[in-house]
Amino acid sequence: MEALRRLGDERVARFATIGANGPHIVPVVFAVDGGRLVTAVDQKPKQTRELQRLTNIAVHPRVSVLVDHYDEDWSQLWWVRVDGSARVVSSGPEFDEGIGLLVAKYEQYQVAPPLGPVIVVEIDRVVGWLASRER
Amino acid sequence: MEALRRLGDERVARFATIGANGPHIVPVVFAVDGGRLVTAVDQKPKQTRELQRLTNIAVHPRVSVLVDHYDEDWSQLWWVRVDGSARVVSSGPEFDEGIGLLVAKYEQYQVAPPLGPVIVVEIDRVVGWLASRER
Repeated sequence: MEALRRLGDERVARFATIGANGPHIVPVVFAVDGGRLVTAVDQKPKQTRELQRLTNIAVHPRVSVLVDHYDEDWSQLWWVRVDGSARVVSSGPEFDEGIGLLVAKYEQYQVAPPLGPVIVVEIDRVVGWLASRER
Repeated sequence: MEALRRLGDERVARFATIGANGPHIVPVVFAVDGGRLVTAVDQKPKQTRELQRLTNIAVHPRVSVLVDHYDEDWSQLWWVRVDGSARVVSSGPEFDEGIGLLVAKYEQYQVAPPLGPVIVVEIDRVVGWLASRER
């Protein structure tokens, strides 16, 4: 699917969860494999900031992930959003597989693989928008 | 404030609201004026996609807006997030002021100003992160 391919080729996405006081949004590096999207916590979560998305997912597993292309020529704008259910995986085969996907995509992780946990999103909706199709 | 200045200088942000089925996230162009952030619907909202954020704000006014800088040198990453309460403004002086801020920032809007409505976010929290400060 074209939109999912565009998503997977991007280097950064924005990951939205629902928190107690409103939506929470943070940039993430990620990988897509079939109908799943994976991302990981880079360092040990020492700070509230790092833990927020994990806490949120435990209460509200629904998440939304966006990649978008900005250009001063607004006819070139596009974005792809996936919605899905997330779960936090701290060990086991699914954890190893998620880390493997991230390390394969990002050479930066080859030097220092993310410690995790891994967040696995089961994608159940893909929405894409291209400015050029509005005209 | 440094973080708010970084935010205001960026050309695109991601705007998160809470919907009935989970978080909703969409890229937006925007302007910051003091403690407020404004964005607008470009065209008349004909489609569900366009209306979603307005419907969401009516039910859950809490929103979160993110700008982030991606670089393959991960020591250069940074992001700024603001949280606040949003309201939808369809006419009047605040509408005119919001459209004026957007037109002043984006020359693309000088040819075709956004029709609105305008979304005004009263910022009550600014969170900034710089990768270079983690080291």
